[in-house]
Amino acid sequence: MPDLFDLVVVGGGVIGLSVAWRAAGRGLRVAVVDPAPATSRTAASYAAAGMLAPVSEVTYTEEPLLRLGLASLERWPAFAAELTRASGHDLDLRADGTLDVAFGSDDLAALDDLAAFTASLGLPAERLTGRECRRLEPMLAPSVRGGMLAGGDSWVDPRRVTAALLAALGRAGATLVPDRVTGLLTDSGAARGVRLAGGGGLSAGRVVLAAGAWSGSLEGMPPEVLPPVRPVKGQIMRLRSPEPVLGRCVRGAVHGSHVYLVPRGDGGLVLGATQEELGFDTRVTAGGLWELLRDARELVPGVTELEVTETIAGLRPGSPDNLPLVGPTIMPGLDLATGHHRGGVLLAPLTADLCANGDGADPVLADLAGLCSPLRFAGAAPPRPPGTGPVENTPREQR
Amino acid sequence: MPDLFDLVVVGGGVIGLSVAWRAAGRGLRVAVVDPAPATSRTAASYAAAGMLAPVSEVTYTEEPLLRLGLASLERWPAFAAELTRASGHDLDLRADGTLDVAFGSDDLAALDDLAAFTASLGLPAERLTGRECRRLEPMLAPSVRGGMLAGGDSWVDPRRVTAALLAALGRAGATLVPDRVTGLLTDSGAARGVRLAGGGGLSAGRVVLAAGAWSGSLEGMPPEVLPPVRPVKGQIMRLRSPEPVLGRCVRGAVHGSHVYLVPRGDGGLVLGATQEELGFDTRVTAGGLWELLRDARELVPGVTELEVTETIAGLRPGSPDNLPLVGPTIMPGLDLATGHHRGGVLLAPLTADLCANGDGADPVLADLAGLCSPLRFAGAAPPRPPGTGPVENTPREQR
Repeated sequence: MPDLFDLVVVGGGVIGLSVAWRAAGRGLRVAVVDPAPATSRTAASYAAAGMLAPVSEVTYTEEPLLRLGLASLERWPAFAAELTRASGHDLDLRADGTLDVAFGSDDLAALDDLAAFTASLGLPAERLTGRECRRLEPMLAPSVRGGMLAGGDSWVDPRRVTAALLAALGRAGATLVPDRVTGLLTDSGAARGVRLAGGGGLSAGRVVLAAGAWSGSLEGMPPEVLPPVRPVKGQIMRLRSPEPVLGRCVRGAVHGSHVYLVPRGDGGLVLGATQEELGFDTRVTAGGLWELLRDARELVPGVTELEVTETIAGLRPGSPDNLPLVGPTIMPGLDLATGHHRGGVLLAPLTADLCANGDGADPVLADLAGLCSPLRFAGAAPPRPPGTGPVENTPREQR
Repeated sequence: MPDLFDLVVVGGGVIGLSVAWRAAGRGLRVAVVDPAPATSRTAASYAAAGMLAPVSEVTYTEEPLLRLGLASLERWPAFAAELTRASGHDLDLRADGTLDVAFGSDDLAALDDLAAFTASLGLPAERLTGRECRRLEPMLAPSVRGGMLAGGDSWVDPRRVTAALLAALGRAGATLVPDRVTGLLTDSGAARGVRLAGGGGLSAGRVVLAAGAWSGSLEGMPPEVLPPVRPVKGQIMRLRSPEPVLGRCVRGAVHGSHVYLVPRGDGGLVLGATQEELGFDTRVTAGGLWELLRDARELVPGVTELEVTETIAGLRPGSPDNLPLVGPTIMPGLDLATGHHRGGVLLAPLTADLCANGDGADPVLADLAGLCSPLRFAGAAPPRPPGTGPVENTPREQR
């Protein structure tokens, strides 16, 4: 009996929907299973601010993540244009760069180090004085000491992205199953679909787990394939002003504490985000809001006048090495697309392409796939060389 | 043709409902007109924390307000007991006192002055060291310098109070009209009822304006009877903890900025409140929340761990002299019960009694009525002596 679907994606966040949409575009029969696709209030995609900022968010030890981020940022304009064509939705994608600013002298020293590091990598970033920062963004506090403009960094509205992906999937004939997965269907040790909480199951040639922070604890999964993904809580505030307060994303450090302010086209401003290791706690707390407000008002005092329209906490899928887990697992037929931590929105186009390159046809992608392989955490098994996915998987996807 | 009602109350907040309930208890035919009685999100009653704290909130220049507050606090236990009997609702009324604490040395000096003042008035308040404060409330910060315990001060849950009043009014046969008043019905210069936005009107022997912050700008009212009441915005946060954090109300000054923390019986904690003169602005702002959080965490650092369950802004009805406006106006048949500013919940029982004492039968009430007479703002007209209300009013109410 033939499978009902070529691909079942577990999870309807920005990653799962992007993977599904790319697969549907290749003619595969696709289903996405999620109780609340695109709108789960505690999922990272729903809370996210949408910074596409691999340069301004770079840190010393994370050059592999930087490579992934730059490769995905490069894909964003075409991905967005194609998605807008397919869905009719505007994504509020903007490419005016990210301004990284420093408040204290300690923050300035860290910024100087970062600027030297980005220069050594040949990244497009420009060191600015405090005055130059305020010329770009007049609402910045006089006490801002200096900054770095990452001119290529961009941002997008993640809620528009997931809404557009849902619409595009619908138009592409993909199936949305508003249910919860309670286990895998298997056959001779290979994944052959998923069981649903509502009863029954969906058979499929391939299953992709893209359940974000919940990927590591999905009900009914064999323990040996559950990825080492943990929830990392982020609290976010959404503000609103009659006139835009900022022209571009502003990130800043205030005595070592980091905050960002992401302007929306409609006058909205997103303040984020805490990083808390508290398990599946999604409470918005007094302390979380206080931290955001404390730092944001040091950098942009005018935020105090703005209306608070939303406070929310989402769970990012953190991984042990801060790199995502994308690609085949030790179980034939079961792939992962999770562990994107703070970078899910940025890495969505690349992740979709990686999942569509199971045969390793594109050598650039195959090389990047090696950085994300879930097999790096698979016990004693050595990481699979890039571009050499298990044969069990590819034929099923192509059937 | 007889009037439909003896009394129509315009406004279904804690004041209007209390006045109506007291009148219904005296056998009057009563109607309350309000588009959203007890639940108007921008009204003071809905936002209020419910401190019944005339002693800890006393200030030098406001001895008349203190007299009113003490007289109403004295009435609260019986009022609450009667309301609970009439409605079946528990009001979460607690009488464990208010602890007023000081953070900086400047705050301590102000507290010393306040303690001397309350002592000179013979008020029941006890000056405490920082250590004694922490013995009473272990969650207080080590940096709290000292405090004053106002042992008689109480608090109540205002939302329970208004819900109970609604229930009691229903049981007492009063009429709730979920509509908006658009004008007065008059006859020979006397108020004879109200016009409704939904069409038609309600005739009544007496009309009481109890529309809170909106009392000064009610549509269709003769300008000369509109009271000099203005909206004073207050932003409030509601938090929740599994275990109660405080045993009693804590008020505090942090370098001159005031904040209070009011514990609820269910583990809730109310943080309030800003005081802003911004007209009818009811936006919750980043700056408002920041002020509350900044001061609350200085006094009780543990609040940072608590979940934020609500942020809200309400409008208090402020008056030029901070005293309420209760009693007859220059227009026969039209009374006021408004201008209670920060004290509406505290002053509700007294206000209801004052409105029921139109004939001046109770000399204590008549004396207090003199402090609240709306006629003190009526142009050149001298304040009416206590207990001598216009005769036009009383007979109608008694009919």
